[in-house]
Amino acid sequence: MTVRIGIIGPGGIGRSHIARITDKLARGRVVAVTDLDPAHAQRVAEPIGASVYADDAALINADDVDAVIVTSFGPAHEGSVVRAIEAGKPVFCEKPLAPTAAECLRIMEAEQRGGRRLVQVGFMRRYDAGYREIKAVLDSGGVGEALMVHNRHRNPSSPENYLEGMSITDTAIHEIDVMRFLLGEEIVSARVDKPKRTTNRFPHLSDPLVLVLRTTSDVLIDVEIFVNNTYGYDIQCEVVAERGAVALGDQNATVRTGAAGRSNRIAADYNERFEAAFNTELQEWINSVQGGEIVGPSSWDGYAAAVVCDAGVRSLRADGSQEFAVELIEKPAFYA
Amino acid sequence: MTVRIGIIGPGGIGRSHIARITDKLARGRVVAVTDLDPAHAQRVAEPIGASVYADDAALINADDVDAVIVTSFGPAHEGSVVRAIEAGKPVFCEKPLAPTAAECLRIMEAEQRGGRRLVQVGFMRRYDAGYREIKAVLDSGGVGEALMVHNRHRNPSSPENYLEGMSITDTAIHEIDVMRFLLGEEIVSARVDKPKRTTNRFPHLSDPLVLVLRTTSDVLIDVEIFVNNTYGYDIQCEVVAERGAVALGDQNATVRTGAAGRSNRIAADYNERFEAAFNTELQEWINSVQGGEIVGPSSWDGYAAAVVCDAGVRSLRADGSQEFAVELIEKPAFYA
Amino acid sequence: MTVRIGIIGPGGIGRSHIARITDKLARGRVVAVTDLDPAHAQRVAEPIGASVYADDAALINADDVDAVIVTSFGPAHEGSVVRAIEAGKPVFCEKPLAPTAAECLRIMEAEQRGGRRLVQVGFMRRYDAGYREIKAVLDSGGVGEALMVHNRHRNPSSPENYLEGMSITDTAIHEIDVMRFLLGEEIVSARVDKPKRTTNRFPHLSDPLVLVLRTTSDVLIDVEIFVNNTYGYDIQCEVVAERGAVALGDQNATVRTGAAGRSNRIAADYNERFEAAFNTELQEWINSVQGGEIVGPSSWDGYAAAVVCDAGVRSLRADGSQEFAVELIEKPAFYA
Amino acid sequence: MTVRIGIIGPGGIGRSHIARITDKLARGRVVAVTDLDPAHAQRVAEPIGASVYADDAALINADDVDAVIVTSFGPAHEGSVVRAIEAGKPVFCEKPLAPTAAECLRIMEAEQRGGRRLVQVGFMRRYDAGYREIKAVLDSGGVGEALMVHNRHRNPSSPENYLEGMSITDTAIHEIDVMRFLLGEEIVSARVDKPKRTTNRFPHLSDPLVLVLRTTSDVLIDVEIFVNNTYGYDIQCEVVAERGAVALGDQNATVRTGAAGRSNRIAADYNERFEAAFNTELQEWINSVQGGEIVGPSSWDGYAAAVVCDAGVRSLRADGSQEFAVELIEKPAFYA
Ligand SMILES: [Mg+2]
Ligand SMILES: [Mg+2]
Ligand SMILES: [Mg+2]
Ligand SMILES: [Mg+2]
Repeated sequence: MTVRIGIIGPGGIGRSHIARITDKLARGRVVAVTDLDPAHAQRVAEPIGASVYADDAALINADDVDAVIVTSFGPAHEGSVVRAIEAGKPVFCEKPLAPTAAECLRIMEAEQRGGRRLVQVGFMRRYDAGYREIKAVLDSGGVGEALMVHNRHRNPSSPENYLEGMSITDTAIHEIDVMRFLLGEEIVSARVDKPKRTTNRFPHLSDPLVLVLRTTSDVLIDVEIFVNNTYGYDIQCEVVAERGAVALGDQNATVRTGAAGRSNRIAADYNERFEAAFNTELQEWINSVQGGEIVGPSSWDGYAAAVVCDAGVRSLRADGSQEFAVELIEKPAFYA
Repeated sequence: MTVRIGIIGPGGIGRSHIARITDKLARGRVVAVTDLDPAHAQRVAEPIGASVYADDAALINADDVDAVIVTSFGPAHEGSVVRAIEAGKPVFCEKPLAPTAAECLRIMEAEQRGGRRLVQVGFMRRYDAGYREIKAVLDSGGVGEALMVHNRHRNPSSPENYLEGMSITDTAIHEIDVMRFLLGEEIVSARVDKPKRTTNRFPHLSDPLVLVLRTTSDVLIDVEIFVNNTYGYDIQCEVVAERGAVALGDQNATVRTGAAGRSNRIAADYNERFEAAFNTELQEWINSVQGGEIVGPSSWDGYAAAVVCDAGVRSLRADGSQEFAVELIEKPAFYA
Repeated sequence: MTVRIGIIGPGGIGRSHIARITDKLARGRVVAVTDLDPAHAQRVAEPIGASVYADDAALINADDVDAVIVTSFGPAHEGSVVRAIEAGKPVFCEKPLAPTAAECLRIMEAEQRGGRRLVQVGFMRRYDAGYREIKAVLDSGGVGEALMVHNRHRNPSSPENYLEGMSITDTAIHEIDVMRFLLGEEIVSARVDKPKRTTNRFPHLSDPLVLVLRTTSDVLIDVEIFVNNTYGYDIQCEVVAERGAVALGDQNATVRTGAAGRSNRIAADYNERFEAAFNTELQEWINSVQGGEIVGPSSWDGYAAAVVCDAGVRSLRADGSQEFAVELIEKPAFYA
Repeated sequence: MTVRIGIIGPGGIGRSHIARITDKLARGRVVAVTDLDPAHAQRVAEPIGASVYADDAALINADDVDAVIVTSFGPAHEGSVVRAIEAGKPVFCEKPLAPTAAECLRIMEAEQRGGRRLVQVGFMRRYDAGYREIKAVLDSGGVGEALMVHNRHRNPSSPENYLEGMSITDTAIHEIDVMRFLLGEEIVSARVDKPKRTTNRFPHLSDPLVLVLRTTSDVLIDVEIFVNNTYGYDIQCEVVAERGAVALGDQNATVRTGAAGRSNRIAADYNERFEAAFNTELQEWINSVQGGEIVGPSSWDGYAAAVVCDAGVRSLRADGSQEFAVELIEKPAFYA
């Protein structure tokens, strides 16, 4: 009753998934590894007694691999995900599902041809206790309809290879997905407002930015993206509804009193802030693989996020603050 | 050494100013009252032993009136303020200084002709302990340059005679002024984003709204305006700077624990939230009248706010989310 | 309609009362000053144009002195307060009313002979917005009966002349009074628990201490007294009742986010923390002098606090943690 | 590499341990169950495919049982734990290790005879992120020595079979252990102060209570125990040290704003509040069983808690507030 998992392209996030499956979660085991660099694959596989495969196809088709996790570089996602689909094996793909909407569409087509959901996208915020409580409050109806959402996505610093569009495609993509999840609606437009830039950044980067989104029912969403704030990984979200507001708390484990006043820590990074969400995400995925029905964020969610990102990046590259429409294909009944 | 004050047009705010001068502040006394409705003036004047005057000119020119407070209807402000200037008497004028930029300009011209500052505008947020602490942090330089400011201006409900543009000219005008105060910069553009409307409002009203402003150095300011939130008077402000953020606290006098969890009250209205600021505002004005030099928010501040409001109202009335430039005259050295 | 006030023994607290009457409060004026050091009295009187008197008797009996404030050294309180009573003039006496219960009793006897309440004791916490909200919640009955109260009275440091018993008589006396105010009951016993001592103190001082009190209905009160905490003036109070708890909030004007996490300031000293309470205290006293009826904390309150302090000091000096009964005289109907 | 676990006496806590081992934790499996009621054992065992044994001896000695969890009624603990020790199998025993110090001593003797640590006691608070952060701050030395600790242990209600002494032996025992853990010192005395009783309790019960403890270095600890507060499971702990204080935060996942003000939830029960701690506790135990060295709370910790409970219960039963010494045997080097 253990799910035997193969992992394709284990970089930082892939190795932390291996560690959690091995040391923290129930009923999963990583039995297979592949990587463009075979020596790297060997180093990862050895301590957990996993087999090394020459490529994704070989790993996917191994008899003792029940399900696959794809954590390779984004442009490689489509190939591996489609291969897994064609092998009839559940596949958990880290975000983004793929860098372009076209690739996502091809994944969806393959999945629909196969006739059942096999793909889950790694949008882990849906598994955070805070976002789930917000959703529960909204769904309960007690505060009326959501009207606005204010988000902050702040990182202490970004590396030099963090390029302009990544504020949208790599950072704000989490808010793009979780807004769709919380509100149960598609996003129909995106606009980027560009504030004064911090001096604590690489010259190539616009930082901070504000991404403004609208949903089908006109909920107005703002996402402050600030990836060089110098002080911490600070994620905030407040949904303003007709009769009240619900916001993420700080989840403060302790409150300290001293020369700095009364204070609580801000997380250092996403691993600290979302460790529990990552664990829940993968445990629920393992459970759903065992249960035979994938229920997490779907290919459609990966596709929708990609299209919103496209509109956001176009606005970021345009002069001033121009709004771009988000044009989705009609949603297949398959993903209803 | 008491400042003898005449009040013109004492409605709700005027009467609360009379009450605070009489019962809470030092070295001021209301000695004269006038109102379009003489019976009303009589009712206000009698309990405090003040004289009633037939009109603003008579009150302003009374020998025992040292300084004037104008709390009449906005369209009447210009006349009274200019008369006070021409009589050489300090005048505290409730916000707005005047409903249009043209009127504000005429007030500024009169004041400059007189050769010294006599006008203070009732922008009381500049006297709130919270905004003052934010300004002190920014001015200390410890958090670097301000880059963005997020504001929330929420009221539990608006009356039926609260018309569309008043979200800007009556409500957001406070943030417009206090942003100029905190940042020490002019606002150069205004845009209104229109979210999904709450069902808890009069049909004629767009509510909530988001007003987006930019300053000369490109600080990006958003102001959520939500005047029918059903729950309370909730004022929030967070300045995001290069190395940290500073926000208004809740000023919670108590924290309660019970069936509703751990909670603190939200103020019921602006009187509760800003009572201390109103007191400080008028005490400092009385002090400055005695000291011979008016130092609070000036005619220029009233004018600048009016021009920003104009741009905001135009954006509110335009389709979609259009940005409008704020075109100020060159700032007279007189107001430097 | 201005209350003309004479001040006896203006040290630090006296001068801050003069400043607030002069610059912040309505309808009071300091017209007379006396001090053991006539040169000091002269320095205090001059900038406010007050007269200097040779001694308390002369000041009290001056025709233009309507009411008296006593801020001299504690052992001098009885004489001045009794003289004011005998002159039929309202007298505001800083805490303690007097250092011993015997002196307080003599003040009460003089006041009762005079036939009307003339004395108010400077227990300013009763005027703090936080304690008042706690009292309002308790009095509303919504949380049931109070069962326990937890207090913290923390100072950053104590001066060398702060002697052992002063933790009770000078510091915890505020909690002793405000507990009686919140609960509407007398305290019937006192016990001091002595924790490990901080190394940041003078060798002569036991610091911190915990004072444990019981009321007539058996409400159990603890007061942590820690006067060398190194970090700030930190006053906390939580009343635990049958169906919930109510505590003082931090009254945080701002919340800061940065390298120290999310934080709010702790007050530096009692002037910062209780400035508004001091202002309200004296304004309400001036109002009550004008209204002809003194309503603030009475001689009885001063006496009761002194007796509780006595029991506390005895416990502090005893070995271990011994409880001492608080023996009050029967409360005169005069103070009902 | 899976630890095969047998469970003895699966009531509520036992079944939740089975659920977490089966569905949430890595590398453990429950393979054996026994209970005084064989039908109950059968119902528990069946869904997880475990074997049922007639008694604890049979289960402990089963070849495929690597380690044992004891969650039976307290008086049965000693027998099962000693049998596991004699079989050389690691045993996790829910708190209390045993109801009396004498039983705990016999367990310790058996364990020492066996020559290696095999027992871990279920003091799960040591695994809570909040307490661990407090300990890290203390251990870092940045706030100096701990001087006092204030604890609140509040439950919404207690069942009728919750008898007088259980406030100490069942409820405060968690604080007794976690204080020893945080401070790294033994407790040397216990005293119970008895406040006014809530009307929301069974007549047989003193509720609330305050347990006051001292450690070897004279740290003074108070524990408010209030098991019928009507509103929630509210655990608080503040360690006051020489240069600051560190307290548990509320771990608030969300903050809500509405008619009740700004609020965060209080946990409903210990499962909600400490779910993560329970998971960490058992995962670390499984890890240590695999690693061959038991490192969690030991028999000595179970014994020390039992002796402190004894002193507390004696004080509870005595008149007034009497302090009782905690008399421990000399600590065996085995448990150093
Ligand atoms: Mg992810
Ligand atoms: Mg105003
Ligand atoms: Mg005082
Ligand atoms: Mg346990």
